[in-house]
Amino acid sequence: MGRWEPDSRGRLQEAALALYSERGFDQTTAAQIAARAGLTERTFFRHFADKREVLFGGSALLQERIVAGVAGAPPEDGPLDAVACGLAAAAAMLGEFRRDLSRQRHAVVAANPELRERELAKLADYAAAVAKALHQRGVGEPQASLAAEAGMTVFRVAFERWSSGGDDRDLADVMQDSMAVLRAVASGG
Amino acid sequence: MGRWEPDSRGRLQEAALALYSERGFDQTTAAQIAARAGLTERTFFRHFADKREVLFGGSALLQERIVAGVAGAPPEDGPLDAVACGLAAAAAMLGEFRRDLSRQRHAVVAANPELRERELAKLADYAAAVAKALHQRGVGEPQASLAAEAGMTVFRVAFERWSSGGDDRDLADVMQDSMAVLRAVASGG
Repeated sequence: MGRWEPDSRGRLQEAALALYSERGFDQTTAAQIAARAGLTERTFFRHFADKREVLFGGSALLQERIVAGVAGAPPEDGPLDAVACGLAAAAAMLGEFRRDLSRQRHAVVAANPELRERELAKLADYAAAVAKALHQRGVGEPQASLAAEAGMTVFRVAFERWSSGGDDRDLADVMQDSMAVLRAVASGG
Repeated sequence: MGRWEPDSRGRLQEAALALYSERGFDQTTAAQIAARAGLTERTFFRHFADKREVLFGGSALLQERIVAGVAGAPPEDGPLDAVACGLAAAAAMLGEFRRDLSRQRHAVVAANPELRERELAKLADYAAAVAKALHQRGVGEPQASLAAEAGMTVFRVAFERWSSGGDDRDLADVMQDSMAVLRAVASGG
């Protein structure tokens, strides 16, 4: 990327989300996104493999961070405490995104069955990776899968609350709070 | 359906699962399924709208049963106890299926990204319906969503264990046990 394109990636993301919201994801082309951002289509494809990548581009990195958080939890932590360390790592990464763009992204994904199914598949992938990280900490089954999937539930509910503006606090706080609510619900019947 | 076709639905399901396993879902046609079952293609389409319906046909009824189980839980039950009543209703319905066919179905779905995404979307729909049923019992947010999604986690993990032969007991027992493990994990850290 040349210096004459400061933050072209961010401009493309913003333009894409605006168009997906206005016209729908299926009706938007990469060329239109580039034009809206005042950039060329070639620049678009230097940043994103396709228009879906604008929505899911960070997921491999996010999964790495979550898994590293779980693996790096204190050895004496139980499975769900270790998962909470993974969620804290996710919150540190995602909490830097602009909340209004996250909200827009959430609405676009929710409105399109194909994108929604893709999103759910990513979360299931994170859960499988977290379960594997728990196995490596010596956690057996079904404890590892249940802790991992419950953790991804907390992640999803907290992220939706945060991005929808239902909770004004930092994402890390909303995640911690949601984890505490899950624990209370699980112990309270 | 005429009397001259005893259990043609079951025969079609069995034939479909065998072919999906052998050739892959995408490579199998309705005509091939009908031929394998010794029936006509017309009979296939009297039972199923398309070949995907063979795998997901019972999901609307299953969701109804789960929701009815939650709604019918004793009024004093907490959110996760009410969800457990929904899971018991699901186990009563699904536990009647042949375990070997459930296992085959699971392998077919897991092998095909599109089917796997569809399956995850169904589970997310169940969770949303359960959260709504909890709202009607006076449960607020995020308690309702967390209890509903945690319950679907238990459902999925238990069903996989049961159908994979990882646990020889009845599905209802495996579900109860998985719920107990989730509670222990959630309280134990």
